Amino acid sequence: MRADTLWTNARLLTMAAGSPVTNEPGAIAAKDGRIVHVGPGDVDAERVFDCEGRLVTPGLIDCHTHLVYAGNRATEFELRLKGASYEEIARAGGGIVSTMRHTREASEAALIEQALPRLDALIAEGVTTIEIKSGYGLDLDSERKMLRAARSLAEDRPVRVATTFLGAHALPPEFAGRADAFIDAVCEMIPVLGGLADAVDAFCEGIGFSSEQVERVFAAARKQGLPVKLHAEQLSNLHGAALAARYGALSADHLEHLDEAGVAAMSQAGTIATLLPGAYYFTRETRLPPIGALRAVGVPIALATDCNPGTSPMTSLLLVMNMAATLFRMTVEECLLGVTRNAAAALGLAGEVGTLEPGKACDLAIWDVREPAELVYRIGFNPLHARVFGGGITALRA
Amino acid sequence: MRADTLWTNARLLTMAAGSPVTNEPGAIAAKDGRIVHVGPGDVDAERVFDCEGRLVTPGLIDCHTHLVYAGNRATEFELRLKGASYEEIARAGGGIVSTMRHTREASEAALIEQALPRLDALIAEGVTTIEIKSGYGLDLDSERKMLRAARSLAEDRPVRVATTFLGAHALPPEFAGRADAFIDAVCEMIPVLGGLADAVDAFCEGIGFSSEQVERVFAAARKQGLPVKLHAEQLSNLHGAALAARYGALSADHLEHLDEAGVAAMSQAGTIATLLPGAYYFTRETRLPPIGALRAVGVPIALATDCNPGTSPMTSLLLVMNMAATLFRMTVEECLLGVTRNAAAALGLAGEVGTLEPGKACDLAIWDVREPAELVYRIGFNPLHARVFGGGITALRA
Ligand SMILES: [Zn+2]
Ligand SMILES: [Zn+2]
Repeated sequence: MRADTLWTNARLLTMAAGSPVTNEPGAIAAKDGRIVHVGPGDVDAERVFDCEGRLVTPGLIDCHTHLVYAGNRATEFELRLKGASYEEIARAGGGIVSTMRHTREASEAALIEQALPRLDALIAEGVTTIEIKSGYGLDLDSERKMLRAARSLAEDRPVRVATTFLGAHALPPEFAGRADAFIDAVCEMIPVLGGLADAVDAFCEGIGFSSEQVERVFAAARKQGLPVKLHAEQLSNLHGAALAARYGALSADHLEHLDEAGVAAMSQAGTIATLLPGAYYFTRETRLPPIGALRAVGVPIALATDCNPGTSPMTSLLLVMNMAATLFRMTVEECLLGVTRNAAAALGLAGEVGTLEPGKACDLAIWDVREPAELVYRIGFNPLHARVFGGGITALRA
Repeated sequence: MRADTLWTNARLLTMAAGSPVTNEPGAIAAKDGRIVHVGPGDVDAERVFDCEGRLVTPGLIDCHTHLVYAGNRATEFELRLKGASYEEIARAGGGIVSTMRHTREASEAALIEQALPRLDALIAEGVTTIEIKSGYGLDLDSERKMLRAARSLAEDRPVRVATTFLGAHALPPEFAGRADAFIDAVCEMIPVLGGLADAVDAFCEGIGFSSEQVERVFAAARKQGLPVKLHAEQLSNLHGAALAARYGALSADHLEHLDEAGVAAMSQAGTIATLLPGAYYFTRETRLPPIGALRAVGVPIALATDCNPGTSPMTSLLLVMNMAATLFRMTVEECLLGVTRNAAAALGLAGEVGTLEPGKACDLAIWDVREPAELVYRIGFNPLHARVFGGGITALRA
């Protein structure tokens, strides 16, 4: 077999299960967009690139974002710093409802145009797969518009997009005082999404939806054969992670208030713990997610930007790793797994991306660093040398 | 008078004293590298650029960095996350002594080569002036080598470099147990720096040098007519800020343990308070600098990256602003002043840069944002559209 492309003289960080996180010298080859060789020794190939000893990792995966939205909340941020009260901010048009209004008003093209700079920032750091949630439309047409915009980003840029329907994100004003009726409406949206969503998510919280309401959404998702995930235990413990685990959720996300029972349920169900240090940082949370307990039972931990205008206006997955290390005391290996193999699993894409193994998509990030730790240690520095998506080189620095 | 270049249709954030931090529509013009017009109305010019309503600020100023050094401390970072003790890290070759060894061994060219990617990261975010300290050489030849490397960065890139001699940074191993003898040596270095340093700094701390030792360094600096600044009150209160103020210091930096007397002394002396939120974040400090007390008496606050391999491996001044807002609750206006006007004052360059006013160097950052708050609000996103250094456009995005 002759490969299409061979990258030689690389230090390979495969992130494969059982393989230690050290950078082994070797080569990697792709054919028809798939990895066909990884490790010591070369293979015959049409094109050969010399990595000159650079570190090669799987393309990074941002597995929890709200990347598609209109407007921004910088004014609200500024008011808060001046000591404005919740009411003053609401009167000034702040809060999630302001993002909902801007998103409903925006055309699909405008949503794409506003999302692209954020996507480009992530891509510039080696991201090759991104999850994008709906949840600022909160009516069928607007939610579908968000999901179509998310899907079409994969046409505009060389990136894999996984979409998630988050209809149960917040209560829109027209349903004020009628949360159960809104959940009815959300459940009715799910069967008519027509393939626009790869998964279904909800916000289980005192200020969001109850576990009973979330369970109705999950049941509707199951009917359509859609996997679920959940914003759980961010501000309080409604036992959302255990509920998610009962529905075989791909992931439960945030988890600052997760308890031992929740950890055990996730472990049994194989549900990934997706931690979001950007939101922890931006909201000045002080309660740490139970990383020791997750480690103890081997629940895989993913990391993501949670990119959103209200609680994590963040577009750097490298910085997410630094925050996970600095604020959560996760190790370098845990941080790297969090944005590769475990992030792939959180999207149900473990067979497709997230490690350098034969058969997987050839998504690579090639870094101007010597040691894996350098990817986590630096703050606000991007050492990406080149990025490969599906075997094709899509970014290369001089 | 005909200007060389005119930038029209800008939202001007002049940062000038007395001018509110709002973005006024207007134009700015340069002749021979200096601002000759700023505000409403245009002037006649050779070249005209349409800013298309973009926000224009003074070029950003990073007024406290240790940008020039060799090696990195990612391995030490990784070991710490694995729970390694101080002794284990020292045995593995960590700590400031490891940076000293690498820096002493490196050629001047190697120091430049390793500093350039860090400088480029800052420049890419609109930095036009940077302070760079010595302090990893700790002998005359190595300190001079560092300062020469810092100076020559201004030849390699369109950026203004202010150099600071930080001989009293740490005790080199050959002086172990003889701190006073090392301070003698440092004081002897100052008269023979031969114009390589624009200021003199020291590290006043239990693990650094005593206030008596620092005072000897300051006296030697005064003899040479060099202004001083000080790493003060980071880990404990040795009353370094008050000492610095007695010597008319340009700035006292870090200041987490600054007391009321220190604040008063700085206020009287006109010493700038330079806060370093990256180091606060990276070292997981919990004690906040006394921002309320500094505000109350009107001590100007500057912000900087403190870029260094041990406690702030950071190369983003935008992120510094976000951290100052998020972690220190500084307002948007305070954050912007901290990297412009007040940072210029911290370098003794208040007459030269830091605001958009006639007579000053025409250093501009042109941003793809609508509101000043967006520069502070976002995390890990760079909205720089173009950068102007001394009237010349040096970076422009499509
Ligand atoms: Zn979220
Ligand atoms: Zn410093």
